Amino acid sequence: MGNVIIGQSGGPTAVINSSLAGAIKAAKERGVPKIYGMHHGIEGFMKQDFIDIDDYLFDLNDLSLLKRTPSAFLGSCRYKLPEIEGHEPYYEQMFRIMDEWDIEYFLYNGGNDSMDTIMKMSRYARENGKKQKFMGIPKTIDNDLAVTDHTPGYGSAAKFIATTMKEIICDNESFGANDPKICIVEIMGRNAGWLTAASALAHDSEGSGPDLIYLPEIDFDEEKFLTNVRDLLKTKTSIVIAVSEGVHFADGKMVCEVGNENAFVDAFGHKQLSGCCKVLQKMIAKEFNIGSRAVEFSILQRSATHLASRTDVDEAYNAGYTACEAAISGETGKMITLHVQQREPYIVSYEATDIDKIANVEKKMPLEWITKDGTYVTEDFIRYVKPLVIGSLTPYYAGGLPKHMSLKHKRR
Amino acid sequence: MGNVIIGQSGGPTAVINSSLAGAIKAAKERGVPKIYGMHHGIEGFMKQDFIDIDDYLFDLNDLSLLKRTPSAFLGSCRYKLPEIEGHEPYYEQMFRIMDEWDIEYFLYNGGNDSMDTIMKMSRYARENGKKQKFMGIPKTIDNDLAVTDHTPGYGSAAKFIATTMKEIICDNESFGANDPKICIVEIMGRNAGWLTAASALAHDSEGSGPDLIYLPEIDFDEEKFLTNVRDLLKTKTSIVIAVSEGVHFADGKMVCEVGNENAFVDAFGHKQLSGCCKVLQKMIAKEFNIGSRAVEFSILQRSATHLASRTDVDEAYNAGYTACEAAISGETGKMITLHVQQREPYIVSYEATDIDKIANVEKKMPLEWITKDGTYVTEDFIRYVKPLVIGSLTPYYAGGLPKHMSLKHKRR
Repeated sequence: MGNVIIGQSGGPTAVINSSLAGAIKAAKERGVPKIYGMHHGIEGFMKQDFIDIDDYLFDLNDLSLLKRTPSAFLGSCRYKLPEIEGHEPYYEQMFRIMDEWDIEYFLYNGGNDSMDTIMKMSRYARENGKKQKFMGIPKTIDNDLAVTDHTPGYGSAAKFIATTMKEIICDNESFGANDPKICIVEIMGRNAGWLTAASALAHDSEGSGPDLIYLPEIDFDEEKFLTNVRDLLKTKTSIVIAVSEGVHFADGKMVCEVGNENAFVDAFGHKQLSGCCKVLQKMIAKEFNIGSRAVEFSILQRSATHLASRTDVDEAYNAGYTACEAAISGETGKMITLHVQQREPYIVSYEATDIDKIANVEKKMPLEWITKDGTYVTEDFIRYVKPLVIGSLTPYYAGGLPKHMSLKHKRR
Repeated sequence: MGNVIIGQSGGPTAVINSSLAGAIKAAKERGVPKIYGMHHGIEGFMKQDFIDIDDYLFDLNDLSLLKRTPSAFLGSCRYKLPEIEGHEPYYEQMFRIMDEWDIEYFLYNGGNDSMDTIMKMSRYARENGKKQKFMGIPKTIDNDLAVTDHTPGYGSAAKFIATTMKEIICDNESFGANDPKICIVEIMGRNAGWLTAASALAHDSEGSGPDLIYLPEIDFDEEKFLTNVRDLLKTKTSIVIAVSEGVHFADGKMVCEVGNENAFVDAFGHKQLSGCCKVLQKMIAKEFNIGSRAVEFSILQRSATHLASRTDVDEAYNAGYTACEAAISGETGKMITLHVQQREPYIVSYEATDIDKIANVEKKMPLEWITKDGTYVTEDFIRYVKPLVIGSLTPYYAGGLPKHMSLKHKRR
């Protein structure tokens, strides 16, 4: 039996390390001789910058701490493989490296782009008679992968968003009619509104929730927006608005690009598309005599492992475990997909789905889950998302703060 | 025995409702006939907008849920009483209201400005032979009240800041040498750096922490800042910087005012002084070829009750309890202060201190707790803050989200 290698790729999530823990567990159980981690995904792979998992993980307790560690323990990267055609030497080199390290099972944990890696490598192996098996493990807070009901990482981000939204609403409501307040909360999601939609979970038995929800699936209209706010101000002294970072006008222009100041351009010329909450704040300030605040959840929503959903942690773990099992059993060119048999009580199953159906496909919110006026989500969406945030995983505390694992500290 | 009234004032904290719970418990134990809450502090008081606590709280379980509820359950306000001289009718009216409702004990939970209320009302009572007693309960995440070792609210905000900082650092470090990153985190604190300083707690056994900490106690210097970053970039691919919202240049100009876009002016002409992290981000972008991100903790740091420090919750509760007890025992014109007898193991005691020593005084970070180069805090500060974040108070969950109490739902 050959060795296993696993890599983490793309933007981190609160539970990407749970998938790593699951894969390690499966490999150990199957008696895999060596488990390697790629240091910074495929970039580390090409440099043969490998981590021997046994240097860090001895026992189940270590796996439990790994699950409680935010972000990508092995390090992540953003890197898309070149096309096979015309880059055969590149691929030959990849397989040479695997042969050299006796690697038979290649697991990659990521989103759309990472599944492109699995697709290309498994195709190359198939077409060139290579023995290696390639399995994808889904991961993204954006919840935009095809086929799978949802993606590991989304549930925990949704739990963070809904919890924090509840807390923000309490804060915003504490000032009364003498000091009315509008709070605009910007949530991640460039093209898909899944994360922002989850803020509706805050609208629970206590009767509060975000008042308006704007998603990138619906064109943003300034006049309609101001009308929505004006209507709410007739009866409310606290208004809380959730908005996706990726909202855009009908002509395609991003809301965050209004006014030069928000089009932050870094030294590489990359435009950072955040700040639409501040644009909405300015629209409000021009129109209404009311205090306002713009809040960006930013990277907190993908790194808040202290608030991870237990359901999400378990599913991420199971996806990693199942992917490793499947690879060892001879499956290749597939990603583990989650299939919800029943939402209440919640029953989920795992399958291995052909990677061609998943790689480079982006799944947006179904339009029927957005209300007709485009300012909220429907009960069907709530039924969909509700089970994904259930349960908690208490951090291990030291000195009052959650403990984490780190590559800086080998155990041997 | 007369009735008790309690008000919450100023910016909310994660534990202001724990002080309310403590005061209610003491009043119940002493057999106070009626416990009233001011709806939105002194503003509600003047309108006789009172909440009968018995409408919401029946048993200890309700008090436990109240402790787990973020922000000001009774509603808050920002209102400074007029000077007594020249406004005697205003004060006469206040005491008429108290007499009418048979209120003998007046408790006010807030910061500097709220203690000004206790000072003026107790002075008026003393000078005019009124029977009512006035006690202050300390509350502010800013930790800037005099005499008391620290303020309830600070420990939980510090725990949120340090925990989130740890998670952000994991996220920032996950991208390797091919994709180095600088993350600038803006933390509350207009004039005092206590909150931003607490980010240093993230620098723990795992060896990571914010790399640079800039506080308002030290003049900000752009050249020095860029030099600090340049030096770090020689050896690190991940740099995380903590900065107080209130940092300013030597000439007094606020850093957040650089460039028009950050001087957000609302319809009342109020300048919102946030956004210094974006100014620092631009300074970095002009100078270095490196990706960067600006994160504002904003109101999350004062409303994250799900991450409250148990030490802080208990102290807030005890401060409320002790204030109510003291008022009933005849004390007036004082605020409860915390005195740490020993930091390790931690022993704290409570005293009632003359309000004149506290009202309108602002306590900044001692300069000897800031390193000579002005970019970090000392071990003495760490020893000071460490015990304040110890312990957790697990939320009550429903549907995977923390449950809260709300004035919207009476229990009877």
